[in-house]
Amino acid sequence: MANRKVCIVGVGKIAVDQHVPAIDASPDWELAATVSRKGSVEGIPTFRDFDVLLSERPDIEVISLCLPPQPRFQYARKALKAGRHVMLEKPPGQTLSEVHDLQRLAEEAGVTLFATWHSRMGKGVAGAKAFLAGKEVTGGKITWKEDVRHWHPGQEWVFEPGGLGVFDPGINALSILTEILPKPVHVTRAELDFPDGRQTPIAARVEFSRGVTMELDWLQTGPQTWDMEIHTTEGSAVLKFGGNELWIDGQQQPAAEIEEYPALYARMADLVENGRSDVDLSPLTHVADAMTLGRRNVVAPFAF
Amino acid sequence: MANRKVCIVGVGKIAVDQHVPAIDASPDWELAATVSRKGSVEGIPTFRDFDVLLSERPDIEVISLCLPPQPRFQYARKALKAGRHVMLEKPPGQTLSEVHDLQRLAEEAGVTLFATWHSRMGKGVAGAKAFLAGKEVTGGKITWKEDVRHWHPGQEWVFEPGGLGVFDPGINALSILTEILPKPVHVTRAELDFPDGRQTPIAARVEFSRGVTMELDWLQTGPQTWDMEIHTTEGSAVLKFGGNELWIDGQQQPAAEIEEYPALYARMADLVENGRSDVDLSPLTHVADAMTLGRRNVVAPFAF
Repeated sequence: MANRKVCIVGVGKIAVDQHVPAIDASPDWELAATVSRKGSVEGIPTFRDFDVLLSERPDIEVISLCLPPQPRFQYARKALKAGRHVMLEKPPGQTLSEVHDLQRLAEEAGVTLFATWHSRMGKGVAGAKAFLAGKEVTGGKITWKEDVRHWHPGQEWVFEPGGLGVFDPGINALSILTEILPKPVHVTRAELDFPDGRQTPIAARVEFSRGVTMELDWLQTGPQTWDMEIHTTEGSAVLKFGGNELWIDGQQQPAAEIEEYPALYARMADLVENGRSDVDLSPLTHVADAMTLGRRNVVAPFAF
Repeated sequence: MANRKVCIVGVGKIAVDQHVPAIDASPDWELAATVSRKGSVEGIPTFRDFDVLLSERPDIEVISLCLPPQPRFQYARKALKAGRHVMLEKPPGQTLSEVHDLQRLAEEAGVTLFATWHSRMGKGVAGAKAFLAGKEVTGGKITWKEDVRHWHPGQEWVFEPGGLGVFDPGINALSILTEILPKPVHVTRAELDFPDGRQTPIAARVEFSRGVTMELDWLQTGPQTWDMEIHTTEGSAVLKFGGNELWIDGQQQPAAEIEEYPALYARMADLVENGRSDVDLSPLTHVADAMTLGRRNVVAPFAF
């Protein structure tokens, strides 16, 4: 099979750090163009206007959207209406209903829509899911603490409506949780800390059914923490490093070999090949539920 | 067919004003008991403890939950696990995921779950839906302005997390909108006014795709407004009085005869008879999207 041509839209940190190397290393894919206001990738044609890309490059069959969530819908809509397969960075949209609309457009166009959750491809996630299958969950604890200034330097959009705030990393934890639990949970209580004058939270404490709790903090300097432990009546699974290391009952487990983003592009190749889509909104549903149900505190102002 | 026995849980304003008269007037139903901390219905056995009701009255096959949304899940869960059919007042829960969980429980128990939206039974709604079918929507305007002190006297829960604030009435408009539109819309922008120190909004302005706008205000004294207009390339539909009066291109249309709550109980009888459920979460999804995406303003404090 010839390489499939893909265009990256939005050449920012995540595209440069993850998407471009994953595509370069893949036997399935060829980075054929980028669309970006300012960024570019050396040696790859860059378009400033997405409409021009769509009309001039009918040979590119897949669009990978790496933009912030706020403008993503309009790009995805255009790509789907132009008959292209679409890969969405997480979160797949700024609202649930806009992604429902994208699902309908993809069905009408007969193309693949893949709402990616890179953390689900963490090297320990499949092992955790296999361990938990059929077991009775008695509780769990998610601790996700990182430094927004390091991971989102100057990215004001994360504090704008639709940017999700600390749920931008937190949704990675939720994408793992919803993947590995044998039965789903729902938010029962949430407390959200909004920096004075900002529109999204910088910290959150969320309680779910089945005794699962989540603590999110975006002001963690020094060591960063992306840990999850799930307890059952037959032992515990602990995921460290954002799902990339699995411990069961205190024993470290063998890890998958493939990295997160190469795994996403391999999955996309498979979805396109088989004419299927993969859109699971359960992580975003938990965020919307926490934002709807959450008790709001105003905390100290934040500046990058 | 003998009357089906129903138990109302939560004997508050909505139960007394709507549910009890609808059941009394129905050929299908018999109000066999109530569960309430303080309220009761004359001549009907009252239980203070829901567990006692479930264990002592196996003859009651349907539970109608008229509680505020915050405690509703726990009651619904118990009822479904006890093999009873369940009818939920709107909104069906305080989060989307908890209703997903109820759907699974209902399926497991093989019983009916009906998430009611009484405004969908407004006398002009079916006519508006029939008119709009297959037409191209060019815009629309929802104006929902009422006096919270009149409709929710002293009900502090509406301003507590999960109470939805002005979206408690606004979700009625959304339940109509999602019923009548030929193609769905999604929230593109929202502005929410939170009274100082309160956890839910008292006013909101929401923009949807397809040019639909919504204005919600909970401080309207004097005449109350529950109006919706939908414009298409082939004329306009206007619903007044919360969906109960339909005008098409300036001409008033004949109205359905049955009132909202009698229509809900007739529908529930049909669902139970046919072993089906009816749970449409699209109105609550729009609220969650607005709460996630909305820009927040703090406005004057509110007291009942």
